[in-house]
Amino acid sequence: MPSYHAPVKDTQFVLQHVLNIQNYANLEGFADATPDTIAAVLEQGAKFVEEVLQPINQSGDQEGCIRNPDGSVTTPKGFKEAYRHYIDGGWGTLSAPVEFGGQGLPHVISIAFNEYMISANMAFAMYPGLTHGAISSIMVRGSDAQKQTYIPKMVTGEWLGTMNLTEPHCGTDLGLIRTKAEPQGDGTYKITGTKIFISAGENDLADNIIHLVLAKATGAPDTVKGISLFIVPKILVNEDGSLGAQNSVMCGSLEHKMGIKANATCVMNYDGATGYLVGEREKGLQAMFIMMNAARLGVGQQGMALGEVAYQNAVAYAKDRIQGRALTGPQNPQAKADPIIVHPDVRRMLLDARVYNEGGRAFALWGGLLVDLVHKAQTEEERQQADDIISLLTPVLKGFLTDKGYEAATNCQQVFGGHGYIEEWGMSQFVRDARISMIYEGANGIQALDLVARKLGQNGGRAVRAFFEMVSTFCAEHKDTAEMAPFVAPLEKANGHLQAATMWLMQNGLTNPNNAGAASYPYMQMMGLVTLGYLWAKMAKAAHDALAAGTDDESFFKNKLITAKHFAERHLVETGSLLRKVEAGSDTIMAMAANDF
Amino acid sequence: MPSYHAPVKDTQFVLQHVLNIQNYANLEGFADATPDTIAAVLEQGAKFVEEVLQPINQSGDQEGCIRNPDGSVTTPKGFKEAYRHYIDGGWGTLSAPVEFGGQGLPHVISIAFNEYMISANMAFAMYPGLTHGAISSIMVRGSDAQKQTYIPKMVTGEWLGTMNLTEPHCGTDLGLIRTKAEPQGDGTYKITGTKIFISAGENDLADNIIHLVLAKATGAPDTVKGISLFIVPKILVNEDGSLGAQNSVMCGSLEHKMGIKANATCVMNYDGATGYLVGEREKGLQAMFIMMNAARLGVGQQGMALGEVAYQNAVAYAKDRIQGRALTGPQNPQAKADPIIVHPDVRRMLLDARVYNEGGRAFALWGGLLVDLVHKAQTEEERQQADDIISLLTPVLKGFLTDKGYEAATNCQQVFGGHGYIEEWGMSQFVRDARISMIYEGANGIQALDLVARKLGQNGGRAVRAFFEMVSTFCAEHKDTAEMAPFVAPLEKANGHLQAATMWLMQNGLTNPNNAGAASYPYMQMMGLVTLGYLWAKMAKAAHDALAAGTDDESFFKNKLITAKHFAERHLVETGSLLRKVEAGSDTIMAMAANDF
Repeated sequence: MPSYHAPVKDTQFVLQHVLNIQNYANLEGFADATPDTIAAVLEQGAKFVEEVLQPINQSGDQEGCIRNPDGSVTTPKGFKEAYRHYIDGGWGTLSAPVEFGGQGLPHVISIAFNEYMISANMAFAMYPGLTHGAISSIMVRGSDAQKQTYIPKMVTGEWLGTMNLTEPHCGTDLGLIRTKAEPQGDGTYKITGTKIFISAGENDLADNIIHLVLAKATGAPDTVKGISLFIVPKILVNEDGSLGAQNSVMCGSLEHKMGIKANATCVMNYDGATGYLVGEREKGLQAMFIMMNAARLGVGQQGMALGEVAYQNAVAYAKDRIQGRALTGPQNPQAKADPIIVHPDVRRMLLDARVYNEGGRAFALWGGLLVDLVHKAQTEEERQQADDIISLLTPVLKGFLTDKGYEAATNCQQVFGGHGYIEEWGMSQFVRDARISMIYEGANGIQALDLVARKLGQNGGRAVRAFFEMVSTFCAEHKDTAEMAPFVAPLEKANGHLQAATMWLMQNGLTNPNNAGAASYPYMQMMGLVTLGYLWAKMAKAAHDALAAGTDDESFFKNKLITAKHFAERHLVETGSLLRKVEAGSDTIMAMAANDF
Repeated sequence: MPSYHAPVKDTQFVLQHVLNIQNYANLEGFADATPDTIAAVLEQGAKFVEEVLQPINQSGDQEGCIRNPDGSVTTPKGFKEAYRHYIDGGWGTLSAPVEFGGQGLPHVISIAFNEYMISANMAFAMYPGLTHGAISSIMVRGSDAQKQTYIPKMVTGEWLGTMNLTEPHCGTDLGLIRTKAEPQGDGTYKITGTKIFISAGENDLADNIIHLVLAKATGAPDTVKGISLFIVPKILVNEDGSLGAQNSVMCGSLEHKMGIKANATCVMNYDGATGYLVGEREKGLQAMFIMMNAARLGVGQQGMALGEVAYQNAVAYAKDRIQGRALTGPQNPQAKADPIIVHPDVRRMLLDARVYNEGGRAFALWGGLLVDLVHKAQTEEERQQADDIISLLTPVLKGFLTDKGYEAATNCQQVFGGHGYIEEWGMSQFVRDARISMIYEGANGIQALDLVARKLGQNGGRAVRAFFEMVSTFCAEHKDTAEMAPFVAPLEKANGHLQAATMWLMQNGLTNPNNAGAASYPYMQMMGLVTLGYLWAKMAKAAHDALAAGTDDESFFKNKLITAKHFAERHLVETGSLLRKVEAGSDTIMAMAANDF
């Protein structure tokens, strides 16, 4: 049976040494995030996920969820109790607003905890996962009454939130949605339609489920411009806040999926259900995007978090499995064979996973800090800079980290040989669970398109210019020191490739949008590599500084340098080939008639 | 539900236009393989797999196999009947030796049919799959009496063959095996031990199962040098060829796997079972390698075959799914959206799969032809050349094509968005089934090590020199024609990178074997790219020639050129970055202490 230990030390390294979270004490909520508080949250969080969530991860996968004849859904054994622990421990409240019962801690702290929860039990983490995004949408667009009615219970986790976009015939292209909202004259609407792939759409964990539903109100344009956002509670809430009648919404069936089997993926049937408009009519997509951007960061983290738990188990196996001899002669001569971790190619698989786990952790936490700055920065300039970078990098964080998480999980499964393919060992589950992260919340190809077609050009390219300047400045500052050269030189080169690719896009993507589309995926990969190369170089700098200052944990920082070097030598070098793919353009890709595929 | 159509036309293109099979009529069995015969085999084979095997592929995955309390195994519904069709159709006999009831057709023809069978139903194809290898081992090493006793029934498929290497504590390192063989004084042995991961180890398809089992005979060295190979029939065979008593071998349990669920993966318990030595004592590994090399080609093909069926279904979905608009404006203005195949990034995923499907098909069929030449070439020189190339490329065919097959299946699943994750659509099964091909018959890392540590240096590097000469000669012949330049120029460049990597290995791999180990994986990938680049250039040449000669199927050959170009532009370009990975050496990879992982 697989195991998991939350990498608290590495989280702390990123927070303290790389992001220097202590420098942000002037921001709202950060002063409360003292080193002691952060340590307590991470350590208690680690304990919770290791003792409560991880032990029911594999059994949850084997059992799956059951839809009962009355439409209710039973989650796997232990999930209900574990969710009770989650509520009682206040784990949903970490960075929620104080006025609604939250602890008001920085978003970056809840991101740190979120990783542990996903690694321990992704299907479980998905139940409360979308609630945070739902809270954000209501916070930003909802009325005061809606906030008072729904948010306190959603903050504690007593009520869950879901996100209802997809319909049988449409996912990416929301303009096609058919779900209708008929105004009732009393300010409410009757919602009718079918939504599919609704994660946690129905379950037995929470007292109520607050569905956020996209629909077209009567008379609205039948395009993306006609979409409004509605709150549709599973159980209607009385004026006094108590639960009232069951709403006309029901889980029609559960999907049978490749993974995340312990999460109930529901077909939801709305049959004249009572809904409440959130914000303005026909501004639903913008309101939903608040939720989606938050969700995309969380999904990017899923890739990395599964890579992490897969890595931990592969390392344990590679140290334990005695098979063959080191290429340079026996390392374990008293036994009949050496542990397979002596083999360079086994180490390659492990380190390939590790660079994306640790690099991805830095990326996700940095993303969390940028979200904090977007909400809390004290100057508009600082706020805008943070907003530019996180808007630019959200598709990269989602698309690149999930691709790499799947790859990492696959590599770690490979370390097990045949045993990796047997469900008992748990590695298959990590791969199967990781797979969804590349698909949902906007398939990774959509992320790539969002990056090149929307994000690059926004505000005249202000964000990408700021990104290049950030990387170049770092390189210029550190390129001349011998200890940083092995990290900075490859980063500079990769950044140059990315700049060339950006230039190519500017010159070729506008005249022929298919060039932008054809280049989008390798471009996203390049930006992912440069972003991680930048973060790895920063981590190398932090490790050097710590070693220079003297530390009683030398091996931690030395290993950080080795891992950084592996990223520079074996991953950052891919930008050269990726640039050639970008420059290949769209002629060949568009040449074949659709019917000839 | 997914569908499948055997790509007979593409197989014929490779056989006739690329491999020029008609030029080998002087070889034994090839004269019988007239164009009419080949067409009949392929078309009837297509019909068989499409009508009989494909319809039970998804249900087989859902049902899986059942081990009954008496140790017998029940295969999924329809498998027994389908296997009866397989026997009755003579599908096992295609390239089996005529003197034992086979049709004596070229091996390359059975390879062609094998692909269809895997695409239609990989789990089914695995039942007879190892029988061919078992036949080869007995043919080459067995006594005449053994051949007479076992081979005719194995050729028809009435009896199946299996391969028993792995034990709970060892797979790759066979020196560690513990299964014992005690001589009984009458020429037979008593075999005792446990074997795991035995594909088709027990089932209800065949009248008998002929297990080929590695064991150490009493007194043999307890190392890889002490291994002998034994025939252990499930049911003992009487002198007159009739079935006798049940042997002391039993399926102890079935594994629960990520995929290939309809194939019974057995723990086999040998409890003093009667076994018959094959060939000489303590030469068991050599005898088994005959079987393993055949199996490795078949496994390489599995990757590609699953990529193919995944591609076909993704294409159908991409043409059918209406979502969003083309970047250059509506292509389907009368509807509310365009089919997603208008999007460059969807085409990228499809073409990325297609280049490895078609390129892999050419590689596998070429491999089959080389195996024919190894057995049937009329001059020793020709035989040796074929043997050199197929020995060199077997690990590449296995390792590279299975990695790419998994990637192709994953990409094709991605085309479906969320629907790809739902089991009903069948794409998940292709990914799950493809995954095993990277693991078994020597995990892909072992293939890479076999390539750099054994194959490259054999006979003073004769094979790799011949490989480079083959590619260089082709490039020299065709580089100056305008129509071939787009394929030859990138191939020459990639071949140069591969030569540089080979040189680096010669200079650095011998002094420090860890350098060879650290370089092995990217080196295997480079050789895979150059091999496919060479085959794609040959296919482009064949397509140009056909177009120049005039054809009534212009679009087929034009599409071949487009696909070849996609490979050159988007895949062959990866060798530059891979060379840098090779040249990174092993210092970083070996730097971290095992306990610091």
